[in-house]
Amino acid sequence: METPKTKLRRIPSRGHHDHETIYSILDKEFVCHIGFIHQGYPVVIPTLYGRDKEYLYVHGSMASRMMKDLSAGIQLSFTVTRVNSLVLARSSFHHSMNYESVVLFGTAEEVKDRAEKIRGLKVVSDHIIDGRWEEVRPILDNEIKATMLLKIKIEEASAKIRAQGIKDDKSDYDLDIWAGLIPTRRVWGEPIPDELLREGIPVSPSVGKFLKKMGE
Amino acid sequence: METPKTKLRRIPSRGHHDHETIYSILDKEFVCHIGFIHQGYPVVIPTLYGRDKEYLYVHGSMASRMMKDLSAGIQLSFTVTRVNSLVLARSSFHHSMNYESVVLFGTAEEVKDRAEKIRGLKVVSDHIIDGRWEEVRPILDNEIKATMLLKIKIEEASAKIRAQGIKDDKSDYDLDIWAGLIPTRRVWGEPIPDELLREGIPVSPSVGKFLKKMGE
Repeated sequence: METPKTKLRRIPSRGHHDHETIYSILDKEFVCHIGFIHQGYPVVIPTLYGRDKEYLYVHGSMASRMMKDLSAGIQLSFTVTRVNSLVLARSSFHHSMNYESVVLFGTAEEVKDRAEKIRGLKVVSDHIIDGRWEEVRPILDNEIKATMLLKIKIEEASAKIRAQGIKDDKSDYDLDIWAGLIPTRRVWGEPIPDELLREGIPVSPSVGKFLKKMGE
Repeated sequence: METPKTKLRRIPSRGHHDHETIYSILDKEFVCHIGFIHQGYPVVIPTLYGRDKEYLYVHGSMASRMMKDLSAGIQLSFTVTRVNSLVLARSSFHHSMNYESVVLFGTAEEVKDRAEKIRGLKVVSDHIIDGRWEEVRPILDNEIKATMLLKIKIEEASAKIRAQGIKDDKSDYDLDIWAGLIPTRRVWGEPIPDELLREGIPVSPSVGKFLKKMGE
């Protein structure tokens, strides 16, 4: 997936263009930042997404400016970032961050076919909480009509990964300065039931499965 | 800070334009996504940042494409996103996310004055780990020269916050479907000392203070 756009110019050792690496980062996260040009200026908006094979799906309101703009097939940049640790070196200059990111270029296409649209909406739902789609009240026609679904083909993308320790200047290793990593991750807490939840309804299996997976 | 660009068109109740709200979100995070137009197409890149009063600071290599592009004063979009919970409703349509985000428009200006540049680099360092700057080996002339520092004035910005419970269709409250929030947050783990750390050097005060603050 290396093209002139996705070629890593700086520190190319951090760059990856294979599907496996790119998909694995996309599958660990659920919020992306989409950049597009609106009336000549760049706009970056966070949104949820899902992946199925070589396609990314994004949904939103039919009234959303971003969805309307993107559905016209304009160029976009789709970026996902995962921070794994702060890297504290002996000099400010060598401070860094261990992270994984994907930057993708392409265009979106609106999914209009009803069956494909329902399937794509389920992809987004499954990507975030697998199994939830089957637990909830089935989607209604007016809900399908009010939702826009976009698909983006993963063609022109690169991953960037820093996953290493401290790289200090040789002469700095003698200094009495603590250096190391501070690891970080996202954790998920105990589910908080809706105040209006009817009595006797246990937390649903998808939520239990999700928390188990995220706690691993 | 409301302008035609930052006016929230959809669900305006989620929109905020006061400095206090915008600053509080910017101060809780440390990674932003910057969007800019490169050779006619949009690019979104994650990067670290710091805030001091009405200015955001971003640093990078003098050789970085983004830094070079931005230093020319082109339009940019600077976005920060914080996810607080998944909102699981009784229908897929009402699933949502509790989050806080800031979307800012503007241009960057390269800081060239040596004293101001050192001060700005310290702002970024302090924003991430307060006190670390004073613990490390002082910055060298060649390091200052190899680093580009950009400042962005916070003028045209909006915050968007969803911080509420489940909003289901009236008729769905009777269903036997679990609904609720799954809260989430970033946690920081025990520091991992550099393998090459000299013996007898304890974790530095800035790291201890950081972990205490983040654990609150």
